[in-house]
Amino acid sequence: MIKAGIIGATGYAGEELVRLLLSHKEAEICWYGSRSYVDEKYADIFRNLFQVVEDRCLSDNMEELAKQVDVIFTATPQGYCAGVVNDEILKNTKIIDLSADFRIKDVSVYEKWYKIEHKAPQYIEEAVYGLCEINREKIPGARIVANPGCYTTCSILSLYPLVKEKLIDPQSIIVDAKSGTTGAGRGSKTANLYCEVNENIKAYGVLTHRHTPEIEEQLGYAAGEDIQIIFTPHLVPMNRGILVTAYANLSQNVTWEQVRAAYDKYYGKEPFVRVLDRDVCPETRYVQGSNYVDVNFKLDERTNRIVVMGALDNVVKGAAGQAVQNMNLLFGLPEGEGLQQLPMCF
Amino acid sequence: MIKAGIIGATGYAGEELVRLLLSHKEAEICWYGSRSYVDEKYADIFRNLFQVVEDRCLSDNMEELAKQVDVIFTATPQGYCAGVVNDEILKNTKIIDLSADFRIKDVSVYEKWYKIEHKAPQYIEEAVYGLCEINREKIPGARIVANPGCYTTCSILSLYPLVKEKLIDPQSIIVDAKSGTTGAGRGSKTANLYCEVNENIKAYGVLTHRHTPEIEEQLGYAAGEDIQIIFTPHLVPMNRGILVTAYANLSQNVTWEQVRAAYDKYYGKEPFVRVLDRDVCPETRYVQGSNYVDVNFKLDERTNRIVVMGALDNVVKGAAGQAVQNMNLLFGLPEGEGLQQLPMCF
Amino acid sequence: MIKAGIIGATGYAGEELVRLLLSHKEAEICWYGSRSYVDEKYADIFRNLFQVVEDRCLSDNMEELAKQVDVIFTATPQGYCAGVVNDEILKNTKIIDLSADFRIKDVSVYEKWYKIEHKAPQYIEEAVYGLCEINREKIPGARIVANPGCYTTCSILSLYPLVKEKLIDPQSIIVDAKSGTTGAGRGSKTANLYCEVNENIKAYGVLTHRHTPEIEEQLGYAAGEDIQIIFTPHLVPMNRGILVTAYANLSQNVTWEQVRAAYDKYYGKEPFVRVLDRDVCPETRYVQGSNYVDVNFKLDERTNRIVVMGALDNVVKGAAGQAVQNMNLLFGLPEGEGLQQLPMCF
Amino acid sequence: MIKAGIIGATGYAGEELVRLLLSHKEAEICWYGSRSYVDEKYADIFRNLFQVVEDRCLSDNMEELAKQVDVIFTATPQGYCAGVVNDEILKNTKIIDLSADFRIKDVSVYEKWYKIEHKAPQYIEEAVYGLCEINREKIPGARIVANPGCYTTCSILSLYPLVKEKLIDPQSIIVDAKSGTTGAGRGSKTANLYCEVNENIKAYGVLTHRHTPEIEEQLGYAAGEDIQIIFTPHLVPMNRGILVTAYANLSQNVTWEQVRAAYDKYYGKEPFVRVLDRDVCPETRYVQGSNYVDVNFKLDERTNRIVVMGALDNVVKGAAGQAVQNMNLLFGLPEGEGLQQLPMCF
Repeated sequence: MIKAGIIGATGYAGEELVRLLLSHKEAEICWYGSRSYVDEKYADIFRNLFQVVEDRCLSDNMEELAKQVDVIFTATPQGYCAGVVNDEILKNTKIIDLSADFRIKDVSVYEKWYKIEHKAPQYIEEAVYGLCEINREKIPGARIVANPGCYTTCSILSLYPLVKEKLIDPQSIIVDAKSGTTGAGRGSKTANLYCEVNENIKAYGVLTHRHTPEIEEQLGYAAGEDIQIIFTPHLVPMNRGILVTAYANLSQNVTWEQVRAAYDKYYGKEPFVRVLDRDVCPETRYVQGSNYVDVNFKLDERTNRIVVMGALDNVVKGAAGQAVQNMNLLFGLPEGEGLQQLPMCF
Repeated sequence: MIKAGIIGATGYAGEELVRLLLSHKEAEICWYGSRSYVDEKYADIFRNLFQVVEDRCLSDNMEELAKQVDVIFTATPQGYCAGVVNDEILKNTKIIDLSADFRIKDVSVYEKWYKIEHKAPQYIEEAVYGLCEINREKIPGARIVANPGCYTTCSILSLYPLVKEKLIDPQSIIVDAKSGTTGAGRGSKTANLYCEVNENIKAYGVLTHRHTPEIEEQLGYAAGEDIQIIFTPHLVPMNRGILVTAYANLSQNVTWEQVRAAYDKYYGKEPFVRVLDRDVCPETRYVQGSNYVDVNFKLDERTNRIVVMGALDNVVKGAAGQAVQNMNLLFGLPEGEGLQQLPMCF
Repeated sequence: MIKAGIIGATGYAGEELVRLLLSHKEAEICWYGSRSYVDEKYADIFRNLFQVVEDRCLSDNMEELAKQVDVIFTATPQGYCAGVVNDEILKNTKIIDLSADFRIKDVSVYEKWYKIEHKAPQYIEEAVYGLCEINREKIPGARIVANPGCYTTCSILSLYPLVKEKLIDPQSIIVDAKSGTTGAGRGSKTANLYCEVNENIKAYGVLTHRHTPEIEEQLGYAAGEDIQIIFTPHLVPMNRGILVTAYANLSQNVTWEQVRAAYDKYYGKEPFVRVLDRDVCPETRYVQGSNYVDVNFKLDERTNRIVVMGALDNVVKGAAGQAVQNMNLLFGLPEGEGLQQLPMCF
Repeated sequence: MIKAGIIGATGYAGEELVRLLLSHKEAEICWYGSRSYVDEKYADIFRNLFQVVEDRCLSDNMEELAKQVDVIFTATPQGYCAGVVNDEILKNTKIIDLSADFRIKDVSVYEKWYKIEHKAPQYIEEAVYGLCEINREKIPGARIVANPGCYTTCSILSLYPLVKEKLIDPQSIIVDAKSGTTGAGRGSKTANLYCEVNENIKAYGVLTHRHTPEIEEQLGYAAGEDIQIIFTPHLVPMNRGILVTAYANLSQNVTWEQVRAAYDKYYGKEPFVRVLDRDVCPETRYVQGSNYVDVNFKLDERTNRIVVMGALDNVVKGAAGQAVQNMNLLFGLPEGEGLQQLPMCF
């Protein structure tokens, strides 16, 4: 039985981790860390778990926690994990960091986009970017897994086969993404009040959103060159789900069959990526509550461009589900253990 | 392995049955019946099950179906099940009817409230009202289980201990209920369009809703007398969930402790009924996607009345989940098999 | 031209006041008071008014404000208005207080339910309860108008003819009310975040909500006796609207025609109260954005009770619209000036 | 007083026309046409207008109607208007067609994208495309005004200054649009049920949506060349509003100041187009219920592209409001008459 600790257990990703791990046959949660709710019963905050979880919230003392558990999930604000991690901790435990601290290899890029100083650059090199479908082999031996961002998971998986197989010009990529509001976090900000989000759609963080360099770095590895994209996130009045609609210029003479073959090549055997039937558009409701990513594409002969679409549940495959998938890889368990929930489409 | 057939598999309750049975270790679905979608791939209608279900929809030929399966779920409009059931069918299979056809023992009451003729009154007597928490012992031997209505399950379970223990005047009961829109069904009616339901709340079926006599009959058994209540349903702009707020006059000198003891007496060991901590109000999100019913109450000393609240997920405990619970009882399986999904509170 | 000042202009009721007064032919806003946003452009907070309002937010210095305007609207937390009002201010201006400070005549009742000390009890007696349909004659001469609460306006207007005409037992009244989330205010509380409110319904403040004594006092005047009711508010995932479903025991031998005649007697000529056609249930969307209250009722012969329903827009008739209606009465303007917006039903 | 008739008065655009015209000082509605509801009281369908509209619905007899009114609004399915219009009708009345029948000058393009035969191509030439901000001078003399589509109005107005001033490569335009669900119409289709739309986002009509050629034609006029764009609409769980996020390659050495100057040049004096302050993103809620279009842009130096955003209310500026604006121009009234409603941002 894997002993797991969660720091940041009372955010949306944190709660989802709890929910998933409670159904996981090989893991148990030993530490519900939440700075804001120390000593309160966890089930008093998330009453869906009344009579299921009896534990009280604990502090974010990672040194102490590291002695007690096999793996720590940090579902914390940017900068927290890098600020506390040290050799002693890493000697005792694995870390799956749901923040961005160890996702970006170039520390100056991190510091530029996140506008904070990185406190533990010495661990960036060894940290593995935990996008399982692409880095599956590298994860088992890691001490730190950098769990990918929600938008980035969806964007990268939607575009990866095209970039890798050189079917598009990677410098022409535009990602127009739409997210449910759990993506905005559980902090009590006026902008995230019900009546501010409901009956509205808006773009935000245009050209400045911090998932941009993460997508660029990962797709850049696939392209074999540095790339620059446009990434525009939007806030949608729904709880869960990310839909990515991406655009790119096709390489010369690319056919639908070639594109389809590329998707099948990379995802044909992937348990959590579904390439939809021709002309079917992904919808976020069809992956809701599950670890699936649904992708598809259409070719526009008129403009020689491609429209790529991807949908996932931002708190599952975009956060907690992927973290559990990484945990399974880290500990040699079946990759899908604890992640078999079918999507709940209404 | 129990072979199950579903008639009405493409409604909301039908889809939820599919979702639950697919995760059930001892059952398999052999027949996806849907008159409207015959020959279409089930996963083309509910794309959340893409690559999960490969079957195509079949007709509603219950005679044929009865030969192939151990249990038939009818998630069909009122009158369908009574219109087709016969001895031959019942010789071959069990029926769990999610419609109202066999819920009400007095056929004239059924015909008055439903305004249709009952086509198989000869089976009413033997049919068991499948509210597991109350009729658990009667279910295993039944040929027909009348799966309770969504509002009725919530109303009855919320009030049962009070009525049974004579802590309230059962003739004073008022049930003010609020339901998510899956409760209105998947038929394409203008009134159920997104823009007609969204940003609105309304009462409907005031004093005429057909769940009224069902609640009255069951609570009447508990009271040991015929009772008449007021039941007012409301439509709420959300997908899932029923919240019941019920009011009644307290019997003389009833204390909070007595009431709490009554709830504990009946529900203390129930796996799916949670009596919340003092002063905590049930919320539909905390049972979403699960088979739980959350109940609680407050005593008003000023008026000597009680306010009782109950919440459940109308498509799980209010329909498909309860149907699976009944199936488990019918076939001697652990009652909670396939029903362990934790509530998804966002 | 009436010069108006608003304290609390950046809450939901405050913004609605701004929106309504900007369309009012005889009033102009001279002071956009908002403690939280002093010096910020009002249209930077409510961008719907970009290029419409050029003013910046001012402090809540009521003494200074009183010298500049004819009427002050206080859309502020409980206790604020009572804490600052004084003779000097009242010499210079009228006050329409949207908080509860001057609604309840018995200061001990106020202090018990609101759990704060009343700082200006000397003005309670003279303050007029600004429910225009009932107190129309008393408003013109007032210095302080206590603008009624949202739930209370809906509850009182729904029940008033029944109580006044003794068609029901006023001690049997139960009010089950459902409100949109603007009713919870614009403060940044976790409980009001989009993902906490969306896809959920819950009761709150059960038996302790502070609108209870306000309803009791006003309906008590109509009844000619002290009354005690049960009032249960619920939070609904929508922005605007309150629906009241109320229950009471009918007096002996009351007919539908008598009840209808009572409603017609009091509301037949009211511009903002619509008694719907027989059997039509009020829906909040049909009053959205307007100053209307829609009411109707059904008699239950089985239990000799009545179900009364009322719907209004909580930020219009339940707050800002009623405040403008009061302003019109105070200044001898046509009562409906600035309140002619038709409901926007989607 | 202008006498107006509406055919299709019970759809969403139709109802909005009714709501706007009822507040219009110089127009009166003489004919509420609705094939589906003939003889029913209009206010029984849209109860927001109870006690406001007493009329009953009439048929769609346009010949008869043309004799009675000065202007006919056709808020009807594609093909209807072209199917009935004739010289006799046009002798008697003006037509403002909210369908696409007369929007596209090339009949073969119309027939290809709409997949229906055009029944009255002889009137296409003279019909004026009623995008007031661009064709203001041509409208007054027209007999037929082709009221622009909702997506097209938003897309064209967002991009027009850039194309007209050659600040972008018009062949590089990608329009990613998001619409509220009133845009899907009031027909009772399963796909538009509350529970199918709620908690979901999806693209639809990818590369085949019929607003594509309309945008191309109009922007082509501005560009002085035929252009081909990618247009991707999405369905958003909200009632009203369209947000367009568009992307294009900048021409060489274009600065923010140049772009801003272009927007100011075309929209500086427009009453209904608001160019927002630098870095402020349009949000649909800020134009809700109003005739405004809010636009803004950001330049990406990294990729030398521009991101353009526009927001409008699809049933107002995207349909009924623009139709009223066209009516005002047709009859020499102030262009904004009846369109002064301030946006309702919650």
